[in-house]
Amino acid sequence: MSVNSFGRLFRFTTWGESHGPALGAVVDGCPPGLVLSESDLQPFLDARRPGTSRFTTQRREPDAVRILSGVFEAPDGRQRTTGTPISLMIENVDQRSKDYSEVAKAYRPGHADYAYDAKYGFRDYRGGGRSSARETAARVAAGGVARLVIPEVRIVGHVIEIGGDRAETFDESEIARNPFFCADAAAAARWEKLVDDARLAGSSLGAVIECVANGVPAGWGAPIYAKLDADLAAAMMGINAVKAVEIGDGFAASRLRGEENADPMRPGGRGADPMRPGSAAGPEFLANHAGGIAGGISTGQPVVVRVGFKPTSSILTPVKTIDRAGAATEIATTGRHDPCVGIRGAPVVEAMMALVLADHKLLHRGQCG
Amino acid sequence: MSVNSFGRLFRFTTWGESHGPALGAVVDGCPPGLVLSESDLQPFLDARRPGTSRFTTQRREPDAVRILSGVFEAPDGRQRTTGTPISLMIENVDQRSKDYSEVAKAYRPGHADYAYDAKYGFRDYRGGGRSSARETAARVAAGGVARLVIPEVRIVGHVIEIGGDRAETFDESEIARNPFFCADAAAAARWEKLVDDARLAGSSLGAVIECVANGVPAGWGAPIYAKLDADLAAAMMGINAVKAVEIGDGFAASRLRGEENADPMRPGGRGADPMRPGSAAGPEFLANHAGGIAGGISTGQPVVVRVGFKPTSSILTPVKTIDRAGAATEIATTGRHDPCVGIRGAPVVEAMMALVLADHKLLHRGQCG
Amino acid sequence: MSVNSFGRLFRFTTWGESHGPALGAVVDGCPPGLVLSESDLQPFLDARRPGTSRFTTQRREPDAVRILSGVFEAPDGRQRTTGTPISLMIENVDQRSKDYSEVAKAYRPGHADYAYDAKYGFRDYRGGGRSSARETAARVAAGGVARLVIPEVRIVGHVIEIGGDRAETFDESEIARNPFFCADAAAAARWEKLVDDARLAGSSLGAVIECVANGVPAGWGAPIYAKLDADLAAAMMGINAVKAVEIGDGFAASRLRGEENADPMRPGGRGADPMRPGSAAGPEFLANHAGGIAGGISTGQPVVVRVGFKPTSSILTPVKTIDRAGAATEIATTGRHDPCVGIRGAPVVEAMMALVLADHKLLHRGQCG
Amino acid sequence: MSVNSFGRLFRFTTWGESHGPALGAVVDGCPPGLVLSESDLQPFLDARRPGTSRFTTQRREPDAVRILSGVFEAPDGRQRTTGTPISLMIENVDQRSKDYSEVAKAYRPGHADYAYDAKYGFRDYRGGGRSSARETAARVAAGGVARLVIPEVRIVGHVIEIGGDRAETFDESEIARNPFFCADAAAAARWEKLVDDARLAGSSLGAVIECVANGVPAGWGAPIYAKLDADLAAAMMGINAVKAVEIGDGFAASRLRGEENADPMRPGGRGADPMRPGSAAGPEFLANHAGGIAGGISTGQPVVVRVGFKPTSSILTPVKTIDRAGAATEIATTGRHDPCVGIRGAPVVEAMMALVLADHKLLHRGQCG
Repeated sequence: MSVNSFGRLFRFTTWGESHGPALGAVVDGCPPGLVLSESDLQPFLDARRPGTSRFTTQRREPDAVRILSGVFEAPDGRQRTTGTPISLMIENVDQRSKDYSEVAKAYRPGHADYAYDAKYGFRDYRGGGRSSARETAARVAAGGVARLVIPEVRIVGHVIEIGGDRAETFDESEIARNPFFCADAAAAARWEKLVDDARLAGSSLGAVIECVANGVPAGWGAPIYAKLDADLAAAMMGINAVKAVEIGDGFAASRLRGEENADPMRPGGRGADPMRPGSAAGPEFLANHAGGIAGGISTGQPVVVRVGFKPTSSILTPVKTIDRAGAATEIATTGRHDPCVGIRGAPVVEAMMALVLADHKLLHRGQCG
Repeated sequence: MSVNSFGRLFRFTTWGESHGPALGAVVDGCPPGLVLSESDLQPFLDARRPGTSRFTTQRREPDAVRILSGVFEAPDGRQRTTGTPISLMIENVDQRSKDYSEVAKAYRPGHADYAYDAKYGFRDYRGGGRSSARETAARVAAGGVARLVIPEVRIVGHVIEIGGDRAETFDESEIARNPFFCADAAAAARWEKLVDDARLAGSSLGAVIECVANGVPAGWGAPIYAKLDADLAAAMMGINAVKAVEIGDGFAASRLRGEENADPMRPGGRGADPMRPGSAAGPEFLANHAGGIAGGISTGQPVVVRVGFKPTSSILTPVKTIDRAGAATEIATTGRHDPCVGIRGAPVVEAMMALVLADHKLLHRGQCG
Repeated sequence: MSVNSFGRLFRFTTWGESHGPALGAVVDGCPPGLVLSESDLQPFLDARRPGTSRFTTQRREPDAVRILSGVFEAPDGRQRTTGTPISLMIENVDQRSKDYSEVAKAYRPGHADYAYDAKYGFRDYRGGGRSSARETAARVAAGGVARLVIPEVRIVGHVIEIGGDRAETFDESEIARNPFFCADAAAAARWEKLVDDARLAGSSLGAVIECVANGVPAGWGAPIYAKLDADLAAAMMGINAVKAVEIGDGFAASRLRGEENADPMRPGGRGADPMRPGSAAGPEFLANHAGGIAGGISTGQPVVVRVGFKPTSSILTPVKTIDRAGAATEIATTGRHDPCVGIRGAPVVEAMMALVLADHKLLHRGQCG
Repeated sequence: MSVNSFGRLFRFTTWGESHGPALGAVVDGCPPGLVLSESDLQPFLDARRPGTSRFTTQRREPDAVRILSGVFEAPDGRQRTTGTPISLMIENVDQRSKDYSEVAKAYRPGHADYAYDAKYGFRDYRGGGRSSARETAARVAAGGVARLVIPEVRIVGHVIEIGGDRAETFDESEIARNPFFCADAAAAARWEKLVDDARLAGSSLGAVIECVANGVPAGWGAPIYAKLDADLAAAMMGINAVKAVEIGDGFAASRLRGEENADPMRPGGRGADPMRPGSAAGPEFLANHAGGIAGGISTGQPVVVRVGFKPTSSILTPVKTIDRAGAATEIATTGRHDPCVGIRGAPVVEAMMALVLADHKLLHRGQCG
């Protein structure tokens, strides 16, 4: 079985390889009547787009998204979603013609090369084929549609750590001012040298991203096996190069005592009516160790997730490996690569957050009205 | 929408509340012909069962599992699975009659009380109702069936950290010798006092569990949206009190450089034939930073996951909260509780590992034969 | 893969064999807050229950349904659904101990015996095991819950044909007055002799059931691959012994010309506002050839489905067959059986109609609000 | 919720509108290693393509299918499926620019116009938008891939009745010799005049299609809620204009007695080994009233389904209707339309048969190995 669809009610299916003619997403289950055109999606693709600084791969892709179905001029003259599938397509234009014979023959450690061959018997080896992070462009496009479904939610993703060097301050306005999606100007300045050094050494670095969703009302999440945190964990762990996910305090909560970890409540300022499901009203919480989720259901607090990316596996240092015939060899990955793939992970993490929340908004409405 | 089913081909659905008459699981999609009786499942339930030491809740539940369907005497005279749904039921016998009026009225911080009310309008407040960790008994029963589907896999879960105190050695035979599922005898000795102190202080502690699955062949996992690691992340994050999940080196990988994180390969001792999907043969890996998964597909190395549990939310210390009417109040949780809910998480983590792997074995077989 | 779950948002899973200790259904996704107790479900089970007349099997089953989870006393003091899974269980009490050696060895033509062995390698042969129509008791129980989700809908199922003899008049009040769920008193009188003759001859008869759902608002149905009619077709065709399904005029529509088959519209009496999705208002239709569904979406007209049941396969006449070893033999089915299994199909068809509609109500609400 | 995906393990998702830039299908779960290029799919699209005779719509669409992903040159030099999603796209080229103002304003009886507006609030009215039978081109393309998954199966679909005039003989070689997919040359000759008359009168006719799948081994089908017949019923009922589905004898079986309807068995010629699941060996059946399915599982006999299409709803005769404002009006459908939409249903019915069988082959392999 292959599972290239994500979501339950708000659901998308992606297709395409790194060096094929195009890639895309089909978004199904979108509510009708939402104003949507390419210009609503392109900014998110531009944020993820490669080649915008020397800290990302130099592959030049415009990543222009086309909407092929699912929208139509509504009676008010605006182009709106019709409730039918929205087909999004992004053409690949910079598939540099190069010699793939080495990567075709041998397995790059840290990459999915061997695993794909073990599973499928052979693989599209050009640029990683289907396992390339290029697939995340399709998620980001779909995520742009998801954002329209949850206008009440504001999502902020930012890189909080590169190569073990952690950002220490948070100024949201800084995020767009540096090529690292970093909310700490001083850290961003340090990271320039850090990433440059790694890049010039032919090495690579890992990163940690934090993503916060504000405005999520209490009541989203579908226990027991589609808990909001479980769905977020799957969404984030499924991003290329991710190896760790935390909600709220995460692993740090394992070192707290019960009384330290509790999130006390007091009556909220906006008129607490906890009995109205989905209402924005509710208690005011005095802490948010839980990251906005209890029992798999949102509490009305900000939803907080942290995601750990491993260092890019494509490095110039030769590493021992085997070839398709099983013989020993070495491989070094030349070509264009991100020295820190986690950086461009920020728009992808935001997209997955939006996609999970949009789905859960509809799921909640379906069951609870 | 409510989602009380887990898995795709090997799928189970759980039901029941902490203080209802019973709880259970319906396992669907189990291959036919597997020898199965209650005695195959009971040991796993016994491992998770409360009341076996002073370090767990004193609720006395035999947790005796009954198989109500899906098995029959095969032509060889042995009771085997028939391929039809296996209904498993566990009766609740120690629902102590107590006064629930306080927890009925007010929301316990750290628990799902408020979230359930916000979502559903009211809740079964007795012992946490559906959000109680008692639900995990049903998972453990289902997990026992899953283990029969993957006889080639050996799963070992153990607690590696309680209250921030980390085990340092690994002797698998120690795990069954102490009440903490701890592979480090010295750590287990330290934890006795640690947990006792927390218990006597009416406080609670968090824990971290590591679970390793040996014998998983290369090729399991269904990219892009049912990657093996993503499914494991969802499975683990959905366990009560879990706030963090790592695969392989996890967050530590974010601090490694690419050349440190690579898992080099060399020809395997058993005759490397990477082209035979699902075959046990393959490369020998010289490291396992990846935790046995690349591109969402198993590599043939041990699959390694670490899971962080928050401290039990039920504590004697009064915490500020609100009542159902929205008024300020305080609540302290008396009654029977685990001082460290993570301890009994070990059999649950093992069960979820088995359930995910069994599902992926069948998924792989379905697509790739 | 085994699929013992039905539905998408309102979803149920059944388990159990004809001669096992019990059978049941787990209903998931039920909206919270619905008043529900066993007495809401029992009447539907009583209607389907065997042994109530000489025209059905003489197996005596009280079919008493128990609710094991998913309901709780709400703040208003009434037992209501909590939004968590509702576990329904029906114990088997009249599993007559008999000699099954013949049916264990040989395959009964028309039954699933051979198919189950071919698929699973062996089977629970007692009373048909999982393939017994007894499984439909679980559907009827689940259907009773579904009805609570769609109080705006009134469902009427009735037998319109037995053994080729067709009812000609429709008086709804007659349905409960005869053992055939027949709305035509004259036909019911004829059928007494018809069915008696077949029963005494050790033969069996087929039947056709019509089921109409009134009050379904326009807008339910999820094109393209969960059209309301497609879901109804699957629901009905999946009932034991069903071989044919029609919507509206069905096959007769294939013999009409376009202008005969059109369902003209005129402004409705209740204030036509076709733009308010899900509203009860809309056009008045001057005909209903379409059976209330266009493009897979309900039109606001009555939803009409007709279902063809084959004659009971269990007959006294010996039929050529093979045994498990592949040798030629003959088999005659003694024991207790319905001479016309279609009769008791009426409550099952009604239940499946309710289950499909409840699901689509929630699906529509999820996407379209 | 919108459901534009079909299938469980072999799964496809379609998108696109009648007059949008393109339409397509994403096929997921296809086994790896199958030889596949556009030329494997085009013949099926050509069979369904409009404009090939005067008996179908005169819209001129080449229906050229492109494969955008999921295939790659295998080590043997042939282009094969990689196991990743196969994106198929068909451009619309003959969207004649016409005045849609009438159909934009009023609801065509028999069409989905009103239902879509009731559900979604507005609709793409150009050529029926998403509800157009043009969507079936995407199914036919996906069905072409499905056929590669089941090389052991041979599928034959043919029209057996138009406007109530039934074919009486079966000569498979005739099917390709006339524009009606008719296996009876005499009937085909009669239908020329029948369809011509209807077309010239601005009227339309219904049709019945029979589809037989030979070579399906015993054991496919997933009881209880994904029975092979139930899945086929959903697949067929979901085709545009279909109102009825039968398996085997269908409604006629309701008029048979048990002994007439039984399909006796005798030892098969090829060495009967009923115990080897999925094996082609088995009994020889002496009749096939059941249409090759018992208990929802294939028996090894030919799988037989019959599908009833209503007459095309687009007719020149004016019919009473309402406009979007709810006022009374009349509408006649000019433009290009099939006088008997059932004719071109034959390749679509074949495609849906292939898609269901491919899915069940993989489902069976997943559970039963």
